[in-house]
Amino acid sequence: MNKLVVIGLGLIGGSVSKGVGERGLARERIGVVRDAETARIAVELGVVDRACLSVDEICGELAADDLVFIAVPTLAVESILAKLKAPIAAGVAVTDGASVKGSVAEAAARVFGSVPPNLVLGHPIAGSEKSGVTAANADLYVDHRVILTPADTTDTLALARVTQLWQKLGAEVINMPIDEHDQVLGATSHLPHAIAYSLVDTLAHDIDNPNIFRYAAGGFRDFTRIASSDPVMWHDIMRANRDSVVASLELFMGNLQRLKTAVESDDGEYLLAMFSRAKQARDLYTQLGEPKLPKSKD
Amino acid sequence: MNKLVVIGLGLIGGSVSKGVGERGLARERIGVVRDAETARIAVELGVVDRACLSVDEICGELAADDLVFIAVPTLAVESILAKLKAPIAAGVAVTDGASVKGSVAEAAARVFGSVPPNLVLGHPIAGSEKSGVTAANADLYVDHRVILTPADTTDTLALARVTQLWQKLGAEVINMPIDEHDQVLGATSHLPHAIAYSLVDTLAHDIDNPNIFRYAAGGFRDFTRIASSDPVMWHDIMRANRDSVVASLELFMGNLQRLKTAVESDDGEYLLAMFSRAKQARDLYTQLGEPKLPKSKD
Repeated sequence: MNKLVVIGLGLIGGSVSKGVGERGLARERIGVVRDAETARIAVELGVVDRACLSVDEICGELAADDLVFIAVPTLAVESILAKLKAPIAAGVAVTDGASVKGSVAEAAARVFGSVPPNLVLGHPIAGSEKSGVTAANADLYVDHRVILTPADTTDTLALARVTQLWQKLGAEVINMPIDEHDQVLGATSHLPHAIAYSLVDTLAHDIDNPNIFRYAAGGFRDFTRIASSDPVMWHDIMRANRDSVVASLELFMGNLQRLKTAVESDDGEYLLAMFSRAKQARDLYTQLGEPKLPKSKD
Repeated sequence: MNKLVVIGLGLIGGSVSKGVGERGLARERIGVVRDAETARIAVELGVVDRACLSVDEICGELAADDLVFIAVPTLAVESILAKLKAPIAAGVAVTDGASVKGSVAEAAARVFGSVPPNLVLGHPIAGSEKSGVTAANADLYVDHRVILTPADTTDTLALARVTQLWQKLGAEVINMPIDEHDQVLGATSHLPHAIAYSLVDTLAHDIDNPNIFRYAAGGFRDFTRIASSDPVMWHDIMRANRDSVVASLELFMGNLQRLKTAVESDDGEYLLAMFSRAKQARDLYTQLGEPKLPKSKD
């Protein structure tokens, strides 16, 4: 491609731009950020070739062989789409990385009447509780999955260009309907984050013991790591994927209520059967060969 | 000490015996296991010097300068205590590693009328989803905490000998009342395990999507690792610590219900405040300097 424009240089956007740079996949990488300090750091760290502070500044220079990646928090995508009306109308391929796809499709429909053919919705299944431009990592997507949710109306050339971008960054690209994406991520990502935040909040504020964290066992650290994730980002995701998150929460709370009843009534048979079933499922999941991730350092 | 007798050579008991052996802390290490194959492996791996298949076999040879460590699943401790009646009456120091202390104190009271002075109840805060004698690790307790729950009636010499054993294995020893131990562990360990088992069971069995695990993000692996823990052990722990587990579950479910209500009613202010509060607590916990653990490999 000629120019890569990345709107939002957090972990997700910054890592795409850095990866494109290190692999020489674009003639120029331009970042759009909200403040001058981030712009300065992004250029200094080699995350982008240049950075500007508004989408409007770069709209005029976009052409058909450029690619725009929107990497802002989920609920902020709509305002970016509104600013990209002219280049999108001109056929520039645009994709995004928001964690919820239904809400982005609705936002696009509000802005454009329907999802434009050259807007390819996507979601890289990668991330970390780390955030910000300084966390950008050129190899973040290596051996990770990226889900794209093209429609029948999606332009095949735009889809091919977005697919190639991710593949060249080392990712495996999978296509999936929007509804399935939001259900699967609601269950496997948004639900665990809701649980982790709620567990830590329960221990920190609802239990009357100031030393409660001092004696936490090893598993607790891994178990609660995702509660250190960016609150704004997750606030957006929960709101954007409300129906799937609520449905997942209801299933989980029903299951947990059954477990609680079994503990209360000393139903050892239920407990052993359920724990064995869950261990078997978790062990199978490990064997599924989920992509190897760089271990978190904290 | 002269002889170390470890009853039950799983991860916890095997690691104590291996650690004592590598550091030359006992003249002889004897393991008591349930089957001949485990006995053979334990000797072959150097976990013990010799192994036998019943507690009765070793009772006759125990003297005051020996130490007995009971490392069987929580609910099996009572039957072991019953078999150790003679050596305990003769003043041999005995300790245990069960994850719940109230239930062990009650078991001791049933066997002996009250907790004997030379029975020192304890709980090493270490473990893994790995289990069995082959997982034994001489350095498992290095930089880990061990909680002992002595009573006013506990023999100071027995307490000192148990404390020294753990310290020489590299652990930090903390004394705590039984009730506080069971509350703290109920909240920071037993509750997270209940949640992890329940989450995996929900995804594997309650959600109608056979591919649900295929697209799980990176955090999911860390988050659900503890659901691979030994089901029998955790069945015992939930039953033994029923009151604290139920109380913790109720607090957590109340917190999660408030979160669900906020998602349903699109209460962004609540979500942002709660996620921010939880992130702050989790980040503070990290800074608390919880002991560094060998990272799990799976």
